[in-house]
Amino acid sequence: MNSKIEHIEYYLPKKYETLKDLKKDNPSWNIKKIYNTTGINKRFIASNENIVDMAEKSCQKLIKKNKIKNIDFLILVTQSSPSGIPTSANILHQKLKLDQKCLCFDINQGCSGFIYALAVAASLIKANICKSGIVVCSEKYSKYIGKNDSSCRPIFSDASSSVFVKKSKKSKIKGFVLGSDGNGYKNLIVPSKNMKIRNKILKKNKIYMDGSNVFLFTLNKVKECFNQILKKSKLEKNKVDYYIFHQASKFVLENLVRKIGIDKKKNIVNLDKVGNTVSASIPIALKMALQKKKIKKNSKVLLLGFGVGYSWGGCIIEC
Amino acid sequence: MNSKIEHIEYYLPKKYETLKDLKKDNPSWNIKKIYNTTGINKRFIASNENIVDMAEKSCQKLIKKNKIKNIDFLILVTQSSPSGIPTSANILHQKLKLDQKCLCFDINQGCSGFIYALAVAASLIKANICKSGIVVCSEKYSKYIGKNDSSCRPIFSDASSSVFVKKSKKSKIKGFVLGSDGNGYKNLIVPSKNMKIRNKILKKNKIYMDGSNVFLFTLNKVKECFNQILKKSKLEKNKVDYYIFHQASKFVLENLVRKIGIDKKKNIVNLDKVGNTVSASIPIALKMALQKKKIKKNSKVLLLGFGVGYSWGGCIIEC
Repeated sequence: MNSKIEHIEYYLPKKYETLKDLKKDNPSWNIKKIYNTTGINKRFIASNENIVDMAEKSCQKLIKKNKIKNIDFLILVTQSSPSGIPTSANILHQKLKLDQKCLCFDINQGCSGFIYALAVAASLIKANICKSGIVVCSEKYSKYIGKNDSSCRPIFSDASSSVFVKKSKKSKIKGFVLGSDGNGYKNLIVPSKNMKIRNKILKKNKIYMDGSNVFLFTLNKVKECFNQILKKSKLEKNKVDYYIFHQASKFVLENLVRKIGIDKKKNIVNLDKVGNTVSASIPIALKMALQKKKIKKNSKVLLLGFGVGYSWGGCIIEC
Repeated sequence: MNSKIEHIEYYLPKKYETLKDLKKDNPSWNIKKIYNTTGINKRFIASNENIVDMAEKSCQKLIKKNKIKNIDFLILVTQSSPSGIPTSANILHQKLKLDQKCLCFDINQGCSGFIYALAVAASLIKANICKSGIVVCSEKYSKYIGKNDSSCRPIFSDASSSVFVKKSKKSKIKGFVLGSDGNGYKNLIVPSKNMKIRNKILKKNKIYMDGSNVFLFTLNKVKECFNQILKKSKLEKNKVDYYIFHQASKFVLENLVRKIGIDKKKNIVNLDKVGNTVSASIPIALKMALQKKKIKKNSKVLLLGFGVGYSWGGCIIEC
């Protein structure tokens, strides 16, 4: 049995910060220069909400709007759970009043996390363990970021996205390519107390990002992954209608378009008003593009996530 | 493509505590009574090791002993990661010097976690995304448990187990039944700072377990799940050679045997010298029984995990 993405919804917290707000805390920052690099003006901040609260909101919207009934799985992708025990997906299961036959677990993976969870969802359907269910990505990186962190604060944004995946006669999710390079694990990290890295690089911040090294990894690895997806899907580059990369930053996306050699017009970007929402970024960009009819029905869209870990993954979907 | 479990290894920390050690910290405890209920005398404590260190040790043993080469996935089951960012599986990927084509992520799920990860592994193989890989369960609940916690300290033990799963012509892992009941999420929990439950029930401990409620859930739900697994696998109860339940405690296992109505001799128990190692418990019990030739080759074994979440899951494997 094959599978398809049937519905998408997302949630953005009410509170947000603009570059002007960042300037107040950091008078020395050149916000024009920051905007030219990141492409991000507005970033959402989940102040009183945790990732379960945000996940609940996008799931509720998804379920009610589409009158969804058969939820066999609830896979919650996050790296910012309020607690490790129990898994946040079980708390969400209670809040959504789901059936006992619905299996739940969290996947911890970052900017590639949606693709990983989609691969797991499609596989559970293929193996006939499940027929349909929800992949929800919910991230609150803001809780790790200090006021004066010039690497992370201008970029990361809190949000959740919920995607309903169900079985389908035609294969509408395919060509998965997934990979990792643990050698880069220290370049985007919230170090634990016992990690030696902690004293060296962290003062007021909980999170550390070596932007240059993450960028270099991205340029090399994403192109390779992109070509492998096309090969695995037996598709020529010009047969893909749109590309949605993880919404890392304007600088990263522009360089990827140039390095891979793709048409800029086919590349979906929603950074300006949403920011980099980690694992939630690809579904939000996809939904916005569908709503605005930038992406037409029955299009072939290449999705590709990459980042923290290092980790990367992509696939082709049919909308 | 179907799948099978090919190899298993486990790691227990050097440091351990016996009931006598617990008595020193808690002179009022009746350790004979505790032993009669738990069946556990020895519990392992990962003092200077985190879950990645323990996972590394069982994985190294697994890989070296069996000269394993093709590792397409590394799924790490844990609820006690040193940090949320990056996923611990990526750090483990670096320590094991694995190939870039190996996909990595953590699954957060507790005592049912091995079954969940096994279902995901078998599904990734079924969907032809992977051919073979490792499911590693590594838990350090000791870091959440206070010296005077009479519910948790006599039970939970730190350990890791690593299982190599690969494709197989014959289906040797089947009949998955997985479910959840989020209504029980507060009955085994490490509450986050903002949870109201924190002030009510927790003083010195980070973890809280309502043993009676978890036990009642177990008795009802595990029997139901057990029967569903048999039905899904089209097997009569007497065609199953052995049963391995999550090694919760002697009291729980004895009541399950009675409630379900199974032969006590077919029920594998290794609690005495290992304790309750959360998600690692089923693979460790399976490996020990295979080593001691309690379980014979080509046997049909029903595996069933249950607990925190609430969450449950089981399947039938052929050894």
